[in-house]
Amino acid sequence: MGELDLIKKFRAGAPTHPAITVGPGSDCAVLNWPADSDLLYKIDQVVEGTHFSFTGEFPSSPWQVGWKAMSKACSDIAAAGGWPVAATVAINLKKGSSEFLAVDLYDGMIACCERFKFGLAGGDFSTSENGLSVVVSLLGSCPKGKAWTRNGAQPGDALLVTGTLGGSRKNKHHDFKPRLEEARRIRELCPDGVHACIDITDGLSRDLHHLCAESRVGARIVEARVPLSPDAREFQHALTDGEDFELLMAVDNELAGDLLKKWDMPTPLTCIGDIAEGQGSLSWIVDPAGDTRLLPNIGYEHRV
Amino acid sequence: MGELDLIKKFRAGAPTHPAITVGPGSDCAVLNWPADSDLLYKIDQVVEGTHFSFTGEFPSSPWQVGWKAMSKACSDIAAAGGWPVAATVAINLKKGSSEFLAVDLYDGMIACCERFKFGLAGGDFSTSENGLSVVVSLLGSCPKGKAWTRNGAQPGDALLVTGTLGGSRKNKHHDFKPRLEEARRIRELCPDGVHACIDITDGLSRDLHHLCAESRVGARIVEARVPLSPDAREFQHALTDGEDFELLMAVDNELAGDLLKKWDMPTPLTCIGDIAEGQGSLSWIVDPAGDTRLLPNIGYEHRV
Repeated sequence: MGELDLIKKFRAGAPTHPAITVGPGSDCAVLNWPADSDLLYKIDQVVEGTHFSFTGEFPSSPWQVGWKAMSKACSDIAAAGGWPVAATVAINLKKGSSEFLAVDLYDGMIACCERFKFGLAGGDFSTSENGLSVVVSLLGSCPKGKAWTRNGAQPGDALLVTGTLGGSRKNKHHDFKPRLEEARRIRELCPDGVHACIDITDGLSRDLHHLCAESRVGARIVEARVPLSPDAREFQHALTDGEDFELLMAVDNELAGDLLKKWDMPTPLTCIGDIAEGQGSLSWIVDPAGDTRLLPNIGYEHRV
Repeated sequence: MGELDLIKKFRAGAPTHPAITVGPGSDCAVLNWPADSDLLYKIDQVVEGTHFSFTGEFPSSPWQVGWKAMSKACSDIAAAGGWPVAATVAINLKKGSSEFLAVDLYDGMIACCERFKFGLAGGDFSTSENGLSVVVSLLGSCPKGKAWTRNGAQPGDALLVTGTLGGSRKNKHHDFKPRLEEARRIRELCPDGVHACIDITDGLSRDLHHLCAESRVGARIVEARVPLSPDAREFQHALTDGEDFELLMAVDNELAGDLLKKWDMPTPLTCIGDIAEGQGSLSWIVDPAGDTRLLPNIGYEHRV
């Protein structure tokens, strides 16, 4: 099957969105951006052998790779408190890959578009001797001037986390649901309460350090409060496992209690500590015995 | 050098743009999109062994790969008659690549941003066993409702092309200048004259077929008028060589003559034929002897 045939097939199935006035098929897509919305803009990639494998202890299916590629970018839009509008994708297939693989991969991406009602505005195909790689660029919208960033956390803020942490390597890393609906509900229940937010991709420990470094604060988390995923065998996993794709938020302390009280979604929302004055983003952990120790800045990192 | 160090270095050098309110460093970039502009949205990739090689007869430097990756996406924004605003990039480096390679690649991308005054809003880094791949997502702007597409060509339109064609494999494919300034000047000189436009990436023959198929018309080109690049050894090269990155336009016949008369840029702008009534996008070529033959739909295509 030639590239052009596959592209024709994919174009026919591409989900649309009212903002997309010219979709796949021209040199570029055209969107009519709503004047009252800021534009959120993200690029993310999943690469065979680095972010997924078709073999080994925890193999992914092509569908799961497509779902993961799209959902990873959605997770960042969620972390900004926005909603996805339109994606473009660049797929590089290994030469000789089956049509089934390409179609299954595409179906996984489309499933994410349809689940969260955003469009696929265009794409680019290539083949090479390399393994599979999928890059997703995603546009999202949020109320003007209201995007959540990493740098607004203030001493005294409550530290909240969605879902449960750790053990994602088994299944969650390619099955997770980006926390878009949770972010939207938090914005509804607590419109100006979120001071900073990050999605947990490198582990709680490292991503908390990122958030604290950008906000020039420290933090203190209470070990006993951190919600462990059933696939996390010990607390250390919650601290350092990558790809949890949960949201970690610094929320105004006066408003956080009310938010937790009103919380009505099945996904847990938990206060795990607070933001403190900090030098060089140092953070601390209170263990079950009540002793306090330094939270090491360790987690998942690619080496170049 | 770890990923985080390299990212820190790259962030510090990322060109900005007034529309980017949050740049690299948060989970996603935030842009304030001007209400009077449509948003053009493109994704494109260059993959080692497919779009460039560091070895062989015509090797590219990392800088040229970076320039090419960014300029390819700019070429599509030019084909829509727009101007780039902000890019995001996903780079996958082969494990063990030198820091020099990464920095030189980055410098090539940045040179394109600076040349055409658009920002770098974010990026993603990865390493794998695969060869190098660079994906560029690009946002451009154009006057609302005025984007050029492939589907508006009308019988009688003049067929115009920028620059010269063929032989791009030698140097042009990684040195070319995207025709952004030319597109802007054409819009100035002939505001509503361009009915359809495409950038030539698969060769004149195939891209003319693309344009004609989307517009449901045919075309006739006059061989003697097609401007050959000095690196094209024969006319066939102009028809089928990929990656010319010139603009092919169907322009209102009443306005095209005036546009050509007023044309004042160093890049050639040439009328090579016209759009005709067409069945199934059939196009014809008039050879120097005055004989007419069918233009074959051949050119550059990846096989999946």
